[in-house]
Amino acid sequence: MKRLWQWPIDPLARTVRLMLGEKRCSAELILALPWAQPEVLADMAPGARAPVLIDTEAEEKVTAIGTHAICEYLETAHPTPRLLPFVANERAEARRLWRWSEDSFAEVNALLLTERVNQWVRRVRQPDSEALRKGVHALKSKMTFLNGLAEMRPYMAGRSLTLADLSVAAHLSACDYFGDVPWDLTPDLKDWYARIKSRPSFRPLLADKVEGTRPARHYADLDF
Amino acid sequence: MKRLWQWPIDPLARTVRLMLGEKRCSAELILALPWAQPEVLADMAPGARAPVLIDTEAEEKVTAIGTHAICEYLETAHPTPRLLPFVANERAEARRLWRWSEDSFAEVNALLLTERVNQWVRRVRQPDSEALRKGVHALKSKMTFLNGLAEMRPYMAGRSLTLADLSVAAHLSACDYFGDVPWDLTPDLKDWYARIKSRPSFRPLLADKVEGTRPARHYADLDF
Repeated sequence: MKRLWQWPIDPLARTVRLMLGEKRCSAELILALPWAQPEVLADMAPGARAPVLIDTEAEEKVTAIGTHAICEYLETAHPTPRLLPFVANERAEARRLWRWSEDSFAEVNALLLTERVNQWVRRVRQPDSEALRKGVHALKSKMTFLNGLAEMRPYMAGRSLTLADLSVAAHLSACDYFGDVPWDLTPDLKDWYARIKSRPSFRPLLADKVEGTRPARHYADLDF
Repeated sequence: MKRLWQWPIDPLARTVRLMLGEKRCSAELILALPWAQPEVLADMAPGARAPVLIDTEAEEKVTAIGTHAICEYLETAHPTPRLLPFVANERAEARRLWRWSEDSFAEVNALLLTERVNQWVRRVRQPDSEALRKGVHALKSKMTFLNGLAEMRPYMAGRSLTLADLSVAAHLSACDYFGDVPWDLTPDLKDWYARIKSRPSFRPLLADKVEGTRPARHYADLDF
């Protein structure tokens, strides 16, 4: 059995859920609020934070913490369909852009996404307009880069769907839940996202609803 | 032939150099200043930044960009000695802490290391004392966490040397070059570092000298 400690809107947890969906693996989802991590995680390993995957189907029990450990583990344990290409050079490009996505969106998450979560989910305060402004600016700059890739290639890292696509889509989808993605500025990226969004692995994410919030009107619309 | 675009003090480039040393792979080192990335990198892939490894020994030419893509590639291409354990659970823990190290030290690098580079290498300005203070505070908090691991385990992720050790050592060594590591606060971490520092793979790093700077007096001292 697989169990995933996660919070639905967290882009890193979303990356893992998309990967599980693509691999047709089921997992029990256990809620782990980012601002109140369950104590059980700290008992698993020093400093552990969600997402955490525990797999007891494997020969030995595996505890994988963080997207790097979880996704590399899943790719080896469930090689079909491949989400890291077989050819070493293409594999390196997929890993580069997967990592680029996590590193680059960290800035967007720290500003835009955190403000929205504080505003709409935790309802702790009105958003800091300066943080929102900087967050939107950072998001636009990442989207411009990604639009260039989408213009050049069918998928982010090349010819096939990889973890780079899942990671980028997961990050954009979290901002899209709150209606913060200026899709019209980046038409090629929008086309790419529409393709990813219509994959069966994406359906559970489009059905996500976080208590007290309503997703943006177009959030679950495949023809947005 | 392997070629690595790198800057000697960059902790990410140091991680790759340590890994190459442990695997007994030689590579031609090509200077890539972080504040003036060579144009050739942008031609390799959109948004490429050092460290970049190009391997023409492989069956097909491989371009790997960033530590995640480079180190996972090297681990597969040169499996001996292992730097990610064979057992899936231990492998996941090594990847978690390798990634923890890169993510956590990003804060230290953005404050402390960047100020030192601006002060001593680029000589563009006097350091911002507030950034230095925050950087040292961040460094101490990472060191406290790592000291706890060093107290519990012979190596960061468990029983054997892994990429987690190389990454943590690479990051600490960059701060240590400028004499900024308060070793006396974390005796177990200091013992662990003394062991890593005396490995043959570390020698080239201890011989590094960046133009215009002199490393801290104890920097290359194995009995510091």
